[in-house]
Amino acid sequence: MKDDNVEGRARVVNTPQLNAYYEQLAEYEAGALWTVANDIEPWEPKAHSVPMIWRYQQLRPLVLRSLELVRPQEAGRRVIMLVNPKRHDVSAAVGLLYTGLQVMNPGEAASAHRHMASALRFIIEGEGAYTIVEGERVSLNRNDFVITPNGTWHEHGNDTGSGPCIWQDGLDIPLINTLEANFYEVHPDLHQRVTRPLDASYNTYSHAGVRPLEPDWRKAYSPLLKYSWTHTYEALCQYAQASEGSPFDGVMLEYVNPLTGGPVMPTLGATMQMLRAGQATRAHRHTGNVIYHVAKGCGYSIINGQRFDWEEHDIFCVPSWAWHEHANLSPDDDACLFSFSDFPVMKALSIYREEAYALNGGHQLMTQGQEN
Amino acid sequence: MKDDNVEGRARVVNTPQLNAYYEQLAEYEAGALWTVANDIEPWEPKAHSVPMIWRYQQLRPLVLRSLELVRPQEAGRRVIMLVNPKRHDVSAAVGLLYTGLQVMNPGEAASAHRHMASALRFIIEGEGAYTIVEGERVSLNRNDFVITPNGTWHEHGNDTGSGPCIWQDGLDIPLINTLEANFYEVHPDLHQRVTRPLDASYNTYSHAGVRPLEPDWRKAYSPLLKYSWTHTYEALCQYAQASEGSPFDGVMLEYVNPLTGGPVMPTLGATMQMLRAGQATRAHRHTGNVIYHVAKGCGYSIINGQRFDWEEHDIFCVPSWAWHEHANLSPDDDACLFSFSDFPVMKALSIYREEAYALNGGHQLMTQGQEN
Amino acid sequence: MKDDNVEGRARVVNTPQLNAYYEQLAEYEAGALWTVANDIEPWEPKAHSVPMIWRYQQLRPLVLRSLELVRPQEAGRRVIMLVNPKRHDVSAAVGLLYTGLQVMNPGEAASAHRHMASALRFIIEGEGAYTIVEGERVSLNRNDFVITPNGTWHEHGNDTGSGPCIWQDGLDIPLINTLEANFYEVHPDLHQRVTRPLDASYNTYSHAGVRPLEPDWRKAYSPLLKYSWTHTYEALCQYAQASEGSPFDGVMLEYVNPLTGGPVMPTLGATMQMLRAGQATRAHRHTGNVIYHVAKGCGYSIINGQRFDWEEHDIFCVPSWAWHEHANLSPDDDACLFSFSDFPVMKALSIYREEAYALNGGHQLMTQGQEN
Amino acid sequence: MKDDNVEGRARVVNTPQLNAYYEQLAEYEAGALWTVANDIEPWEPKAHSVPMIWRYQQLRPLVLRSLELVRPQEAGRRVIMLVNPKRHDVSAAVGLLYTGLQVMNPGEAASAHRHMASALRFIIEGEGAYTIVEGERVSLNRNDFVITPNGTWHEHGNDTGSGPCIWQDGLDIPLINTLEANFYEVHPDLHQRVTRPLDASYNTYSHAGVRPLEPDWRKAYSPLLKYSWTHTYEALCQYAQASEGSPFDGVMLEYVNPLTGGPVMPTLGATMQMLRAGQATRAHRHTGNVIYHVAKGCGYSIINGQRFDWEEHDIFCVPSWAWHEHANLSPDDDACLFSFSDFPVMKALSIYREEAYALNGGHQLMTQGQEN
Repeated sequence: MKDDNVEGRARVVNTPQLNAYYEQLAEYEAGALWTVANDIEPWEPKAHSVPMIWRYQQLRPLVLRSLELVRPQEAGRRVIMLVNPKRHDVSAAVGLLYTGLQVMNPGEAASAHRHMASALRFIIEGEGAYTIVEGERVSLNRNDFVITPNGTWHEHGNDTGSGPCIWQDGLDIPLINTLEANFYEVHPDLHQRVTRPLDASYNTYSHAGVRPLEPDWRKAYSPLLKYSWTHTYEALCQYAQASEGSPFDGVMLEYVNPLTGGPVMPTLGATMQMLRAGQATRAHRHTGNVIYHVAKGCGYSIINGQRFDWEEHDIFCVPSWAWHEHANLSPDDDACLFSFSDFPVMKALSIYREEAYALNGGHQLMTQGQEN
Repeated sequence: MKDDNVEGRARVVNTPQLNAYYEQLAEYEAGALWTVANDIEPWEPKAHSVPMIWRYQQLRPLVLRSLELVRPQEAGRRVIMLVNPKRHDVSAAVGLLYTGLQVMNPGEAASAHRHMASALRFIIEGEGAYTIVEGERVSLNRNDFVITPNGTWHEHGNDTGSGPCIWQDGLDIPLINTLEANFYEVHPDLHQRVTRPLDASYNTYSHAGVRPLEPDWRKAYSPLLKYSWTHTYEALCQYAQASEGSPFDGVMLEYVNPLTGGPVMPTLGATMQMLRAGQATRAHRHTGNVIYHVAKGCGYSIINGQRFDWEEHDIFCVPSWAWHEHANLSPDDDACLFSFSDFPVMKALSIYREEAYALNGGHQLMTQGQEN
Repeated sequence: MKDDNVEGRARVVNTPQLNAYYEQLAEYEAGALWTVANDIEPWEPKAHSVPMIWRYQQLRPLVLRSLELVRPQEAGRRVIMLVNPKRHDVSAAVGLLYTGLQVMNPGEAASAHRHMASALRFIIEGEGAYTIVEGERVSLNRNDFVITPNGTWHEHGNDTGSGPCIWQDGLDIPLINTLEANFYEVHPDLHQRVTRPLDASYNTYSHAGVRPLEPDWRKAYSPLLKYSWTHTYEALCQYAQASEGSPFDGVMLEYVNPLTGGPVMPTLGATMQMLRAGQATRAHRHTGNVIYHVAKGCGYSIINGQRFDWEEHDIFCVPSWAWHEHANLSPDDDACLFSFSDFPVMKALSIYREEAYALNGGHQLMTQGQEN
Repeated sequence: MKDDNVEGRARVVNTPQLNAYYEQLAEYEAGALWTVANDIEPWEPKAHSVPMIWRYQQLRPLVLRSLELVRPQEAGRRVIMLVNPKRHDVSAAVGLLYTGLQVMNPGEAASAHRHMASALRFIIEGEGAYTIVEGERVSLNRNDFVITPNGTWHEHGNDTGSGPCIWQDGLDIPLINTLEANFYEVHPDLHQRVTRPLDASYNTYSHAGVRPLEPDWRKAYSPLLKYSWTHTYEALCQYAQASEGSPFDGVMLEYVNPLTGGPVMPTLGATMQMLRAGQATRAHRHTGNVIYHVAKGCGYSIINGQRFDWEEHDIFCVPSWAWHEHANLSPDDDACLFSFSDFPVMKALSIYREEAYALNGGHQLMTQGQEN
């Protein structure tokens, strides 16, 4: 960290006279900038969160336990949220991102609502899960990714007779609260009417490079609601034939609005990346916070010098401006990481920056023991 | 057609005095607007072209004949162009659009060139066809659609040992000449080096809703070069489950730039439309010229009251502002029409207009006998 | 001009066999591309027009003469159009641009109409001229520039008691006819009702860098209708303090839509350029056709090696891809050229190109005598 | 405020069993969403700040006092910041916006720096103030508004011999810190070299509707750095002739990027509004926080039922979703309010909402006594 004792930084030495002055300022709800300047104008970003991993095998029994403990009618939604030790004040997993694991019994259906926060779901277990968004029912399977954009009526259910469904929710609730713009409404009829064919948007935008001629879409989010794992994995495999991929992220695709190539929602971006068998990427860092979900395989990530081993359905996070690199521990199969982030916010506000790790062949020196 | 004998139109009666005045004006390369005003400011668009159909079974032998008559080295390309009877002056099939049928023997490869005109190919016969665009080799099969945008080095070849390849070329040559902006260059080495993996762009943009994070694409055309028939037909079938489609065009998808949702090239748009078994669409008209290629099935189109029956690989055209409607004659199979047009020009210049046929349940009265 | 006798160009030698083949093709409205390929795919743009100048002192008496010869009720508008000797077929002054000089007696008012063509006016003489566009009356003075975009109801009049008004009209009529998209309507009441305050758009967008928060403007043209000479000249003088300007065009500003920075209309662009006292610019050429109006001063332009001397209100044109350079003959006053062009078309369709004249210090060798 | 005891909200009653469960969850850095759901998903936005006014006549002596107490070399900048009583944790005046009053003696010049935060200045007193941004020196006068966008090198100074300059700084420091994206750099030479003519951008974009043809500007902020009071006030007066203005804000203009019509910077917007003599606007509320500076006149604003009287150079704030309305107390002169806000953030992230006050003719009932 750079030194503050240089010209251009605040270096005022306190005196009794100044203290008296500060008290006078305080009477008028004012203060002297130089008393806080170095703190509020840091040399580089200060993340409020710490790197974390949440292991699915530890959390799964607790998630299932909630089925016995609360009913959707009282709980609203039966969700175990993952909370960063440093972000209890805003219920965030990292930065201003919220995430949780939601579970639903066969035959259950939560009531419809809408809010200014944007949401996404990543399906973990169970076959009968569905989401209804603005009158369109979306069928869901393992590793499918679905969006419920801000302002849209949405509700979730589980139709199957065979067992509970579990999925990961991701939202920007802490961001929208921080920006003092959150709204919440319960649907007046508690449930929407389904007005479009099943999976209509998925069938409308099923293949790359073709689109209907229908009236212009002026909304800020993608008209395509579901991104299936089957298609996404095929796309990764094909892209792996066309490109080396990124030195930092392997073979990586962003989920996008097929009409604009832009992010799926204005505040939340999502990607799926494939690490080839045995691949260990180089480290970099960037502004923006990221929550990862291990979609396939096992490996580890090194975040700010600390190693985190992961396997399927584990969830971990990388705080803003933290160095990070990923490795696939399988010698003969690929590993896939789903992730979502606030990159669209960083980019919309022109505050996205990134930096490659220059030393040691791009690999961090371990500064802490392995996280077990 | 509306009457010109109304206030607001030119109705000046010639006199000897005026004629003398016109001669004086002509000396200074000037003229009186009112002598031509009604003609150059018509009540509605006047198309220069007539509706036409070119039957593949008639043209195919003539196309193959050219294999014996000329060599690529002398002909540049072995192309039979389709010329509207009213557009010989600009070598257009309709409006300012050029089209032709190109043929290549096994083992042949045309030299590389680039031009300000934009081009597309729609594959009709043969298995070994390929195009190389800016260092990327693109493999092609029946009913595949490939673009060679303006300013890109491109060349075509046929690798197969089994027989000639035939495809349809579509270009905006008449438009670019009319706009006095055409350039042409032969590649200094006659052939490009292949610098990217086979079908790299196709594998990069293989699935809807996912894209690489690579550097911004600022070019005016699609980074995806090939749109395969297999994917396009699947997409039509899926879209048919999600939408009734258009009353005028059935189930129709536009080929687009996957990064923008916009047209594949700035001057040429392309679509594929499916007419369900037995479907007969309603008539409409619009500014913009269209060339159709029958990709699948048989049926007929009525254009300005004249019926044109078509079958696979026939090519027909609809001039600007001509009424048109389409019918699939099969009671149990769908029919598919590929088409390309100057709609992107109409839209970029804000001169696109359309109108539904209001009478007779949306179906034209036949004004002429059937075209045989 | 480059040689066509090279590989990659059409070099087929005619034979009786080929001639028979061509006749066969013609029966099916087809032809052999190689018979026209070199012609329709030229090495570089072929302009249809020749450089021209129309001298105001010669034309003015003829323009005024029309006041006696025709009435607006019969003529529609009393306009002397300027026609390129090579473009009589499309009534163009250069390329696909139309221009003319319109005159109106005090107290006259032409009827309202709208059309798909876009129009602009540049005021030459008279004080009481006005235009009404979509219910807004716009007052006009010498060298003011006003737009009447495509699809807008508009009408012109002259309120003054002191004498006739003369202005230059510029339109894209030949372009819109060539694109087969022209429409024309006479206002059902012959005149519009004025529904907005006088000069409302001019007063709304009066200063740079500030705009109302009103609902989004989604139209393709500028909401600002009038660009006054007073402001434009001040802007040139200020810009001349901030920038050297262009080596080819001097101190040049484009008239733009204040909400987008884009061209005033989708098919027509306009600029005003200032040549400093004694300045002689270097030559360049570009795709796109330009019509100039001398707003202030005197000087000359060299176009494809031919010198054209000009003075106030003269009109001259530069065809596509013609070399051109400008000189101000005054040793102590600036000269200003207004111009309009089809550059927005060139740019929207990605076919704009330009090239600097590399030889002789950037100045053309004279290939023809001076035009007198 | 709506009731939480309804279906669709969390209504789980605590039990010993649940408490035990919550402890178990906490061991894995997890929690039950329903324990915080109603809090983090409020029915409508909860602002962290309270409405405030800072009176210039009270603060001015304290600001001037700092001239004696600290030197720029130690203080970095001599700024009295205005801090909302509820936002001491982030040094914000309201929401995530920072503001302060900066003072500089004649002959002083602060060192150059750049940061990820975006900044603006509004000049209050003194004639010799200047800012240098990216090599361009900008001269400043009373009520001028100038931007120093994120990532640009900038520095301030006071050249005059006549007395201190005072201006208001506005920044998004709390926002950028909250988003964990702040960076800060001191210029390696402590001062920039001036490389452009004085006020170059102001002279380049001096008049509405004209712009240079120079290379595309791809930056996220306005190329125009200074918006002069003289021009802004003239623009308001002209706009007042063309429009009634807004019922909530009077005659209001937004400061914009002249090349896009968009906000001056991606995170900070700014406006100037004129209240006509005697005008009292109707109340509304919106997401987004606003800081006002009284540029001219005197009047009052009612914010969430509390009246705040203001006069020239007073600064007050309206928190997100607070009702507010403004009144000009002068019967014969207009009053002008400068303001800056985070509206561009709200709009970029699609979370801007507004609502008109429906009752009592649009005027709030007073819920608190007048603020003195």
